[in-house]
Amino acid sequence: MIESISQPSDLKSLSHDDLEVLCDEVRTFILEKVSKTGGHLSPNLGVVELTIALHRVFDSPKDRLIWDVGHQAYVHKILTGRATEFDQLRHTGGLSGYPSRDESPHDFVENSHASTSLSYAVGHALAGYDGWTVAVIGDGAFTGGMAYEALNHIAVTKPERLIIVLNDNGRSYAPTVGGLATLAHYRIDPRYEKTKKAIGKMLRGIPVVGESADEMAGRMKDAVKQILEPSTVFDALDLKYSGVVDGHDIKLLEETLEQAKTFTEPVVVHVVTEKGNGYQPAIEDEEEKLHGVGSFDIATGKALKSELKLTEVAGRALAEAAARDEDVYAVSAAMVSTAGLKQMARRFPDRVFDTGIAEQHSVTLAAGMAMAGKKPVVAIYSAFLQRAFDQINADVALHDLPVTFLIDRAGVTGPDGPSHHGVFDLSYLRMIPNLTVGAPADATELCAMIETAVDHDGPIAIRYPKGGAVSVPSLPVEALEVGVAQKLSSGSDVMLVAVGRMVEIAEKAAADLVERGVDAGVINARWVKPLDPRIVEWCSEAPLVVTLEDNVIAGGFGSAVTEMFAEAGVAKKFSHVGVPDGFLPFGSAADVMESVGMDPDSVVNRILTTLTP
Amino acid sequence: MIESISQPSDLKSLSHDDLEVLCDEVRTFILEKVSKTGGHLSPNLGVVELTIALHRVFDSPKDRLIWDVGHQAYVHKILTGRATEFDQLRHTGGLSGYPSRDESPHDFVENSHASTSLSYAVGHALAGYDGWTVAVIGDGAFTGGMAYEALNHIAVTKPERLIIVLNDNGRSYAPTVGGLATLAHYRIDPRYEKTKKAIGKMLRGIPVVGESADEMAGRMKDAVKQILEPSTVFDALDLKYSGVVDGHDIKLLEETLEQAKTFTEPVVVHVVTEKGNGYQPAIEDEEEKLHGVGSFDIATGKALKSELKLTEVAGRALAEAAARDEDVYAVSAAMVSTAGLKQMARRFPDRVFDTGIAEQHSVTLAAGMAMAGKKPVVAIYSAFLQRAFDQINADVALHDLPVTFLIDRAGVTGPDGPSHHGVFDLSYLRMIPNLTVGAPADATELCAMIETAVDHDGPIAIRYPKGGAVSVPSLPVEALEVGVAQKLSSGSDVMLVAVGRMVEIAEKAAADLVERGVDAGVINARWVKPLDPRIVEWCSEAPLVVTLEDNVIAGGFGSAVTEMFAEAGVAKKFSHVGVPDGFLPFGSAADVMESVGMDPDSVVNRILTTLTP
Repeated sequence: MIESISQPSDLKSLSHDDLEVLCDEVRTFILEKVSKTGGHLSPNLGVVELTIALHRVFDSPKDRLIWDVGHQAYVHKILTGRATEFDQLRHTGGLSGYPSRDESPHDFVENSHASTSLSYAVGHALAGYDGWTVAVIGDGAFTGGMAYEALNHIAVTKPERLIIVLNDNGRSYAPTVGGLATLAHYRIDPRYEKTKKAIGKMLRGIPVVGESADEMAGRMKDAVKQILEPSTVFDALDLKYSGVVDGHDIKLLEETLEQAKTFTEPVVVHVVTEKGNGYQPAIEDEEEKLHGVGSFDIATGKALKSELKLTEVAGRALAEAAARDEDVYAVSAAMVSTAGLKQMARRFPDRVFDTGIAEQHSVTLAAGMAMAGKKPVVAIYSAFLQRAFDQINADVALHDLPVTFLIDRAGVTGPDGPSHHGVFDLSYLRMIPNLTVGAPADATELCAMIETAVDHDGPIAIRYPKGGAVSVPSLPVEALEVGVAQKLSSGSDVMLVAVGRMVEIAEKAAADLVERGVDAGVINARWVKPLDPRIVEWCSEAPLVVTLEDNVIAGGFGSAVTEMFAEAGVAKKFSHVGVPDGFLPFGSAADVMESVGMDPDSVVNRILTTLTP
Repeated sequence: MIESISQPSDLKSLSHDDLEVLCDEVRTFILEKVSKTGGHLSPNLGVVELTIALHRVFDSPKDRLIWDVGHQAYVHKILTGRATEFDQLRHTGGLSGYPSRDESPHDFVENSHASTSLSYAVGHALAGYDGWTVAVIGDGAFTGGMAYEALNHIAVTKPERLIIVLNDNGRSYAPTVGGLATLAHYRIDPRYEKTKKAIGKMLRGIPVVGESADEMAGRMKDAVKQILEPSTVFDALDLKYSGVVDGHDIKLLEETLEQAKTFTEPVVVHVVTEKGNGYQPAIEDEEEKLHGVGSFDIATGKALKSELKLTEVAGRALAEAAARDEDVYAVSAAMVSTAGLKQMARRFPDRVFDTGIAEQHSVTLAAGMAMAGKKPVVAIYSAFLQRAFDQINADVALHDLPVTFLIDRAGVTGPDGPSHHGVFDLSYLRMIPNLTVGAPADATELCAMIETAVDHDGPIAIRYPKGGAVSVPSLPVEALEVGVAQKLSSGSDVMLVAVGRMVEIAEKAAADLVERGVDAGVINARWVKPLDPRIVEWCSEAPLVVTLEDNVIAGGFGSAVTEMFAEAGVAKKFSHVGVPDGFLPFGSAADVMESVGMDPDSVVNRILTTLTP
């Protein structure tokens, strides 16, 4: 039946029996495709019925469906004519794992950072957009502060043609943290209606105190609800609220959404779905291994490949540090497991805190902990830490507090959307006063820098890429001294000054150059801030200095090097290898890096061209 | 009586009659001092009783008072031994207008960006800090998303020794926008208690449906409250909540705070205060001119000096643009008046939106408006826009949407705290793909760039300093072409390449150098991104290129220039004038700039030294 759906309007003629068959097919389709390509499995299995109902009740693209985060848009992609492209899901040049304007007129928001959909939606509504705007936001994304900022604004402005679908599965990356999460699962009890009537009848006898009968009646109604269920943030903001709706009942979803369309003010439709619905390993997946996944075996849900990742290497080093020092605390924004805190959480559960998808709060929470004498470690992906740029600067660094940032997924990340690449961090971190910034070249340096960080008297950030650890050191590793670089080889024609994963690329390029008769040397800078001043001296013989980083060139490591040379009064010819100005596509990390000249061959060619007079 | 208070413990022996006298004295003192030095008047007049009550009930600095934003800490400063220093309030080398750890052991958080206090406080509590932590947060700051992130976390963790004082005056910079603001001013009515009892009695007759009697009783109690008052976000999060307390009644405040200390979980104490209390011009100050103010006449509340500011120049140009093009919309984060939107709001109230202190939402709201076909302008101070770094990047720029950012208070701002300087924006903006970044050198260029921006097909940011407009152009001014710099003069010894307010400094320095026989030329770059490639050519004769910006050197305009030279394969000697690595102090802008070598004399000396072999 999937083949017969090439656009949302094809759904409208189907019976509910047909739809049931379609849902099964879609689940099987997603499971089969994702088991091969990898991708976001559980979130998509959870929204099959919801997506179908939305496309039947609304008229996309005139009506705009805005998917918060966007990794739950596979069903939407299938229903909008993209089923045949799923074999190339997240592969270079293939189908994006997120909405993509290039792919379809049904897609609008490509950003995959959480909690933005309400702002986009109220922007449409306040601009007088003449279709419906529907923001689909998970309970996890709802813990992000900007969602609340938007909700507050919606409550004040109450624009027309705006519907908020709260997709509540009680888990985002991990089981949702937050007070809101406790409000679900009411109003479904059939006794509710009966009791409501009985109480309402009694209440009508109570004397009114200085209010109009209408006002009092409204309050009474609220009071009755209050007896049976806790109040919600929507009640507090006086927003129309559907109550909890079964998110796997298409007919009920359609009725609820149709009813929501009859109001002239915004409505919150609270849908409860089961993440991973229809696939037992995903339902029982407490560690959220099937949230975003590589290729796996459908029968068991187990990953086909398994390698030790830098995430785990960092997590192990951190857990060891925490074992030695009881002042080491850790903070995660809804990613305890995926950001490397699993081991520490298992061994020291009282010292690991999950804040929900709340990067801003996470950072300032750590600042507070540091003020109270602890050594907090904040573990957040590079791209998501962008949310807390101001807090790192004004809350942590201004107070020069000993907070460690463990920044995973730095640099080119690969198959996720353009907003998942962590290619801005060296630039946005190195401008922050008091902050030390390290970029280890391998797993051993990563462990060593964690040692350094835990005892560092001030804020320090360690950023490292997504990927496997080539070799894994046994712990403990000796700490690295802050600001001390490593000269790997000398060169009189060209010096390659690299950080992080680019050290390996630089070494390969230099070996190739030496073979071609170019005297090329390599420096592993290790620390982007402070930079080792000896780098100027080490480059004294070479007329050309090439900097290499997996970060944007604009304001990054390379410009830090040129600033140091300017400060030293030394003129040089520079060439910067890194991410050029522009958003990167998705694809394998190697493909993406090659596409912008960050592979060894491109580096060699660039240097040869530059050296040729 | 002020003279007799040198530390908080001196307050404890005073009678409530004494305290009343003290409050009057403190108000007179603040009024007299601030009328001469300038500073934050209204917020401090509003918290006299609250601050005294806090210092009597808690034992600072063992118990930690954390002032959100911090501009309301004058009373706290007076009570902690700093009254004699108020003649030098906000002056170079004098008393900070914010808490300052250098000044007093009673001060902890120096950051003056809103909505952070709850995170700091719960950080203390979760770290097991053994004193009380009290976060004092305004209703305005409470509209910021990170406050909600923290509240959510507090609701889940419920740590001990944490008290949240919500200082609700219904106005932050401007009357508070947000659903929360509508909840105040209940529970004071004396009929409340009586009616509560009557209803409670009736409700006890209702049959229970499958719950324990205790649970039901709790629900009943909530239901009764619900009849008389709307639910609050605190109810929704199941947090202990005091109800509304008169913030000018010291005795009641003390009782409420003492009671809050008896709980083993966090308590929200909701205090209603009057901003500007005791001084009629401040109470009636709808335009918030007396929120933060220069020197003024106490009798009338009118400013002593009045000059046309760049803010108003920008506001006028924007209002004109809005008059010509009905698609021009504007968004402000609680600063409609102070960020230059007053004129547009008066003429086109339906197209100006105030979001509360919600920078993140403001930016993505604008993205939504742009997706719906409008041309939104977001007007936010440079330092506060840091909060929305990720949203500018992933929500606006990734989608290449025509959103204009009007960034006031860029560069060195002067008398406010270190976190008020807007010295990071050129660095954090220029790394963002698709974003055009302009820095006008004067009022005319500012108006011209606004013309450019409104019709620009993509995101564009215009940043300009706090200050007066030397000359004001008549409108309309012709738009400036993006990426086109202006060569003001040629130089064969040195070229000074400047942006924004530093163009004037560069011209002064060059004139001085020419007098001393150094052939110095000046370029006004105008656009930091894209940079005019002709700059390379214009500098071809000069062996030394000096870049000048009122931004951090790290990753700023100067490094953009060196990156362009590297790209062009041209080696040069560079020197970067700008803010060195470190947080800037407060003081007059001229003093602060001189302290880091950004004045004409320092620039001349630096160039002479660099040129001397």
